[in-house]
Amino acid sequence: MGTETSGRQSDGGPDSELVAFRRDLHRHPEPAWCEFYTTARIVAELERRDLDAIHLGETIHGGQRRGVPEAETLAEWRDRALEAGADPDVIAEIGEGYTGAVAVAERGDGPVVGLRVDIDALPITESTTDDHVPAAEGFRSENEGYMHACGHDAHATFGLGVIDRVLDSGFDGTLKLFFQPGEEQVVGAEPMVASGLLDDVEYLFAAHVGLDHPTGEVIGGMDGFLAVSHLRADFAGEPSHAGGHPEQGRNAVQAAATAIQNLYAIPRHADGATRVNAGIVGGGTGTNIIPEEAFIEGEVRGETTALMEYTDEKAETVLQAAADMHEVDVETTRAGRAPSAESDQALVELVTETAAGVGVDSVVERDELGGSEDATYMMRAVQENGGLATYVGVGTDHPGGHHTATFDVAEASLDVGVDVLSEAVLRTAADPPVAE
Amino acid sequence: MGTETSGRQSDGGPDSELVAFRRDLHRHPEPAWCEFYTTARIVAELERRDLDAIHLGETIHGGQRRGVPEAETLAEWRDRALEAGADPDVIAEIGEGYTGAVAVAERGDGPVVGLRVDIDALPITESTTDDHVPAAEGFRSENEGYMHACGHDAHATFGLGVIDRVLDSGFDGTLKLFFQPGEEQVVGAEPMVASGLLDDVEYLFAAHVGLDHPTGEVIGGMDGFLAVSHLRADFAGEPSHAGGHPEQGRNAVQAAATAIQNLYAIPRHADGATRVNAGIVGGGTGTNIIPEEAFIEGEVRGETTALMEYTDEKAETVLQAAADMHEVDVETTRAGRAPSAESDQALVELVTETAAGVGVDSVVERDELGGSEDATYMMRAVQENGGLATYVGVGTDHPGGHHTATFDVAEASLDVGVDVLSEAVLRTAADPPVAE
Amino acid sequence: MGTETSGRQSDGGPDSELVAFRRDLHRHPEPAWCEFYTTARIVAELERRDLDAIHLGETIHGGQRRGVPEAETLAEWRDRALEAGADPDVIAEIGEGYTGAVAVAERGDGPVVGLRVDIDALPITESTTDDHVPAAEGFRSENEGYMHACGHDAHATFGLGVIDRVLDSGFDGTLKLFFQPGEEQVVGAEPMVASGLLDDVEYLFAAHVGLDHPTGEVIGGMDGFLAVSHLRADFAGEPSHAGGHPEQGRNAVQAAATAIQNLYAIPRHADGATRVNAGIVGGGTGTNIIPEEAFIEGEVRGETTALMEYTDEKAETVLQAAADMHEVDVETTRAGRAPSAESDQALVELVTETAAGVGVDSVVERDELGGSEDATYMMRAVQENGGLATYVGVGTDHPGGHHTATFDVAEASLDVGVDVLSEAVLRTAADPPVAE
Amino acid sequence: MGTETSGRQSDGGPDSELVAFRRDLHRHPEPAWCEFYTTARIVAELERRDLDAIHLGETIHGGQRRGVPEAETLAEWRDRALEAGADPDVIAEIGEGYTGAVAVAERGDGPVVGLRVDIDALPITESTTDDHVPAAEGFRSENEGYMHACGHDAHATFGLGVIDRVLDSGFDGTLKLFFQPGEEQVVGAEPMVASGLLDDVEYLFAAHVGLDHPTGEVIGGMDGFLAVSHLRADFAGEPSHAGGHPEQGRNAVQAAATAIQNLYAIPRHADGATRVNAGIVGGGTGTNIIPEEAFIEGEVRGETTALMEYTDEKAETVLQAAADMHEVDVETTRAGRAPSAESDQALVELVTETAAGVGVDSVVERDELGGSEDATYMMRAVQENGGLATYVGVGTDHPGGHHTATFDVAEASLDVGVDVLSEAVLRTAADPPVAE
Repeated sequence: MGTETSGRQSDGGPDSELVAFRRDLHRHPEPAWCEFYTTARIVAELERRDLDAIHLGETIHGGQRRGVPEAETLAEWRDRALEAGADPDVIAEIGEGYTGAVAVAERGDGPVVGLRVDIDALPITESTTDDHVPAAEGFRSENEGYMHACGHDAHATFGLGVIDRVLDSGFDGTLKLFFQPGEEQVVGAEPMVASGLLDDVEYLFAAHVGLDHPTGEVIGGMDGFLAVSHLRADFAGEPSHAGGHPEQGRNAVQAAATAIQNLYAIPRHADGATRVNAGIVGGGTGTNIIPEEAFIEGEVRGETTALMEYTDEKAETVLQAAADMHEVDVETTRAGRAPSAESDQALVELVTETAAGVGVDSVVERDELGGSEDATYMMRAVQENGGLATYVGVGTDHPGGHHTATFDVAEASLDVGVDVLSEAVLRTAADPPVAE
Repeated sequence: MGTETSGRQSDGGPDSELVAFRRDLHRHPEPAWCEFYTTARIVAELERRDLDAIHLGETIHGGQRRGVPEAETLAEWRDRALEAGADPDVIAEIGEGYTGAVAVAERGDGPVVGLRVDIDALPITESTTDDHVPAAEGFRSENEGYMHACGHDAHATFGLGVIDRVLDSGFDGTLKLFFQPGEEQVVGAEPMVASGLLDDVEYLFAAHVGLDHPTGEVIGGMDGFLAVSHLRADFAGEPSHAGGHPEQGRNAVQAAATAIQNLYAIPRHADGATRVNAGIVGGGTGTNIIPEEAFIEGEVRGETTALMEYTDEKAETVLQAAADMHEVDVETTRAGRAPSAESDQALVELVTETAAGVGVDSVVERDELGGSEDATYMMRAVQENGGLATYVGVGTDHPGGHHTATFDVAEASLDVGVDVLSEAVLRTAADPPVAE
Repeated sequence: MGTETSGRQSDGGPDSELVAFRRDLHRHPEPAWCEFYTTARIVAELERRDLDAIHLGETIHGGQRRGVPEAETLAEWRDRALEAGADPDVIAEIGEGYTGAVAVAERGDGPVVGLRVDIDALPITESTTDDHVPAAEGFRSENEGYMHACGHDAHATFGLGVIDRVLDSGFDGTLKLFFQPGEEQVVGAEPMVASGLLDDVEYLFAAHVGLDHPTGEVIGGMDGFLAVSHLRADFAGEPSHAGGHPEQGRNAVQAAATAIQNLYAIPRHADGATRVNAGIVGGGTGTNIIPEEAFIEGEVRGETTALMEYTDEKAETVLQAAADMHEVDVETTRAGRAPSAESDQALVELVTETAAGVGVDSVVERDELGGSEDATYMMRAVQENGGLATYVGVGTDHPGGHHTATFDVAEASLDVGVDVLSEAVLRTAADPPVAE
Repeated sequence: MGTETSGRQSDGGPDSELVAFRRDLHRHPEPAWCEFYTTARIVAELERRDLDAIHLGETIHGGQRRGVPEAETLAEWRDRALEAGADPDVIAEIGEGYTGAVAVAERGDGPVVGLRVDIDALPITESTTDDHVPAAEGFRSENEGYMHACGHDAHATFGLGVIDRVLDSGFDGTLKLFFQPGEEQVVGAEPMVASGLLDDVEYLFAAHVGLDHPTGEVIGGMDGFLAVSHLRADFAGEPSHAGGHPEQGRNAVQAAATAIQNLYAIPRHADGATRVNAGIVGGGTGTNIIPEEAFIEGEVRGETTALMEYTDEKAETVLQAAADMHEVDVETTRAGRAPSAESDQALVELVTETAAGVGVDSVVERDELGGSEDATYMMRAVQENGGLATYVGVGTDHPGGHHTATFDVAEASLDVGVDVLSEAVLRTAADPPVAE
């Protein structure tokens, strides 16, 4: 992706190189800590650009990473990436799933401005119908059962496009581009913050496509992030012959079923929205064996971190009591976790003015996300250091909802995102805003 | 296993060739319709013996086989069997899982006497502790996650031993030996009956080790077979973002949990014992996605076929209502199925007298199984044709219960089983009993 | 009821005085410990007979009585009895619900023979339809909401009829007639045994009408009594405004609902039948208040006392875990309780021979009750003292099942019961049987 | 309550006559449609004042009244009111529970200004501890099991106080005072609106004490009313003997328990808060009878009327499916119902300015109620006719939360409420605000 092709085309159509890049990522969706191909593909592009540093592997992940798959699973994804043509050197540096990359360009004495984009995909089987563009135009997922059903292929593309445009435009400052893994499981941001690479960032932009806003619409700052905590409960009972001695078993599936019913029934809270989901469940070994084991993988959310913690404590109580009821043991572990956060008004206004300036169809100042995002870790980290942060929405017409098999991104929104985000970075450096 | 080594050894220890054979099967446990290695190993032994026919493959399975795994799973087991040294010709004949074998020896004008043994294993991970003999003596399961936890390795061994002893002893009649697959999922007997190979059998013995009776004890006839029906329910809902739009999902896991709770709560019945088990369950795709799919694989049982059907109908009602409650669809399918049955008194007495005659430690006339068995299909088929049938118990000390990770067979009981069953076959041919 | 009218009538129709008495009791059904009218009515009859003792009130109840209603409820039933014409002296002696009576007649040196009949009714609203005889013939329940739906009105009538016939027939021995309260809640027999009045009883007959046997059929001994324990769980949480602060409540109704679902799902047992019932439940104070309290009154049963205790322990676990799950407190109390028991063969045979002798239509040696009965306390007490006991079935055509609104007794069975039971008492005294 | 005592006392203590009146009502709490004593007591006061009309009985209730208790219950409350000294003429006019009153004073050509106060109580047993002022000072509830636990005794007192003050102060306009019954069950406002008595009201004030605001604080307008719908489900199954024939019953309690668990688990909604409560439940007739009937009385709420209806539809689905699951019938009926509403800014500002003017400790412009209120029917009716409405909060220190046994009102807030509300009425008449 050379200088000569980046930027909005004269005919108004989407940049063909950005499109090709996005479609390549779309064909290779990878879940948390398994973004081997995706990382290698991004790094290949970064290496063609004039950057001061490209951080990779363990150095970009401080502290403990939650939810890393077993070695066997990592190996499968690693092999698949190599078969698909990933650079073996990059794969080696990623090692046991230290996916993602951080690119740095220093261009003068201006402030350090960060952009965070996420790169992972979801365990959803992509639609095969003709009215689903990726299927019709030949870039449907090649990793069956996984899919870019939340637009992170577009986000990574924003990242590349912004680098090109910013470096091309007399930028005075330091640009840090965070290609973050594992957002869907809210596990990727926390270790990236812990690595210290964000410590000097004074202004942070994060971005997301879609969110029920049409192509051509830009939202200055999203709020309403739900704090979230992923949890897993493993129930361990005792098997027995279901016909011969049902009374000798200790039934882990009954415990899990009791827990599921009561998890969804945790009391709502006066202080705001809460959520519970038993997203993945399983148990048992044979139809004629009283099930000795079962598990629930799920999550709790809250409009504030306190509300999330309220729900999390209730969930713990439910899981333990369900185990006690059926005389089985239960172990609960917490996986990914993210706090709530708010976009800073000064940066929100900078974005809305920028968006109006570059001529988008429609500008919205703020909207509510109503979901979770571990970008909030990064936003809070920057804010706690006295910096400013905002989470920008880039509208896109999407036929199916987020996290469904027919989700897709209108590629015209790629340029909109690059336009607005790069211009916002440039303005920030040129005229650094201060908190209101 | 040549003529010279069969029969009880002078030192009273178990026949070393029978032991070796049983241990080989024990190392290669295979589930229903996947008994490739087991079948090939049995056939290799049969071919060394003087038999009139060895039936294999499709010819021994009439009608439709229930619960056959997908082609990919069959292929995995097939490959594993070939790697373990199974005869490729036999494997080819088994094809898409037409496992099992029927051996026939015609020796004069006497009656047709059948013996049925089952050969499949269970999805249980075998114990690795030192006090578990197969682990300590090196014949623990090599198919990790599967185990002969119900003694079918011993049953197949009984079959071979009985052939040797009967053919060696001036038997006047026709012996038919049924090595039946898929008992644990109660799917193997029904198609074997439908093949017609049982039509001429006048007397049928089936046998089982253990059942909480010690080594050296023999039970003339087991009763109390619970009729059983395996069922699978697939719930199909609609996914949605668990944080952003919980109300847009239709939650298949909630439906399954509601069903599980109510399945176990189906009313008990005045007419006798009933059972329900939700043995294997699963659902969902991601922690942050409202689960769009879930399944329950389970079974219902009854002391009589009517009681099983009562429970089955209630289960159907529960599954449908649970789906309706959460606005998801459900499809239920029935897999294996077996009726109840009773042992015939004339044959029970023949066995108890035989057992007393060969000098076992203890003889019990009848006991209750309290479980299910698709041997009942064969028993009923023979009885409906005017023949007699019994289900013989051969005691064995077993450290862990049936269907647990520490189940094992005392090998001294191998000879006991062969002694009693072969002698019973010979007596039946010599002096055919009549129904009382 | 004088000598001149007792005994079977020449025309074969039922004894008109017995019928009148039974109908009077039928019109005044009373639940456990509230049998004020019933007791007074029985005592009025007893006083007209030549008895040596009529025991009443506290003296017939040793130890602690379970399940006694609150003083207010007792007072209501007491007033109702007085209004219906009960003798105030008897009512005074009954006091705080010490209902029931024991009549004694000593007639020589023969053995002490006991007959136990129960006298209480059920909280069922009696049918008003024309095909329900009590409604059509004007003796339907006058205590709306309560009904003799299990034939205890007939049992009390048997008691009177037997006294008349036995005393009229040269009986040599001591007759003890136990009119026992509170059988339906299995609370009446235990204190009566504790009073010591049964200590000298050498032979005990108990009797029940119906049980799905037709008029004119007699069963020598019932078995298959399920051991039973009644329990009550009181959940205590915390109320809160259901709209304003749902999270501040601790929801006792959710706890109870969770418990109910899991109580019915307690694993079935290989050793025999078990039962669970959450028979009466309630909770909450207002639609807009998170429910702070709830209760479950129920019972567990088992084919043996051990099976009942197994189920009772599981129930305790379920109730406690359900409370923990919703962070409420629970207190469980046990009310009535009865063990299993068996009828003695020697007495069973005496009854069947007697029944054949008096010319009933049909005689059955033994049958299974499949329910519970606290007569078992008395049977066990006599048996533990070296005596013999049997529980006699007296068939009666009953249109509706036991414990339903259309249950009724064919009055022709009153004489059958009196004939068989009185004759059995006389035979026992004349030729005391010994245990086999 | 004469002119000489109304108004704030010079010593700053609460008006003694208002206090006495409030305490009298507090001693006689009555639930919806049973406010016989309360109505009579209010009317007695109204009759001592110079009013143009006092409307009573059927004329103040148009359309159908929901949730009216059975005649027997009404009769009990009527008798209790008469015993407590209620005027028999008023009681006669109230008839079958047509409780409440509307007072009218016409004083010139100014606008019609309405004030709505509610007068009913809750089924809560009042605290007896010494630190509960009504218990300590002798005006605890005399209707055991019922309690003014939401301050409606204070509201009715506000009404009287406002009449006195307004009529005393040269008011130019028409004052309509609505003493509304049945707010707690949200049944009283709808028929009052249907009576037409609100049709000419141009400005409406409603008021509530407490709401977690301290004594001396006033809130100009409450918002965040949850729309609400009360519902009742009656399950009808079939009884059977729980020991003898559990399979013959159709268990209504199991159906209700399944419903309760799933009601609380209705999916949360992205658009805003929802609530569900199974507030009162019951079922069954005897511990040894499979329960033939059960009921749930509950409510659903939503931040908007649409969200309430979403939840209501889900509840309907759950109730029907729970019935189907246990093969019982269910009938659902809707009782009280109220929409959401918003306070008008012009009136909110008038109140806050008024409050500041009369010197309260603290003024809050708006707050969220987070509960339901059928005052919204009246507010919407006035607003739809082009008028303005606001729901004023009058803070009061309350030891226990609303709807708890230790709730109480600081009597100093009585004068605050009267001051602010009467002054607001006067200002409105003097200088009628217009919508912004």
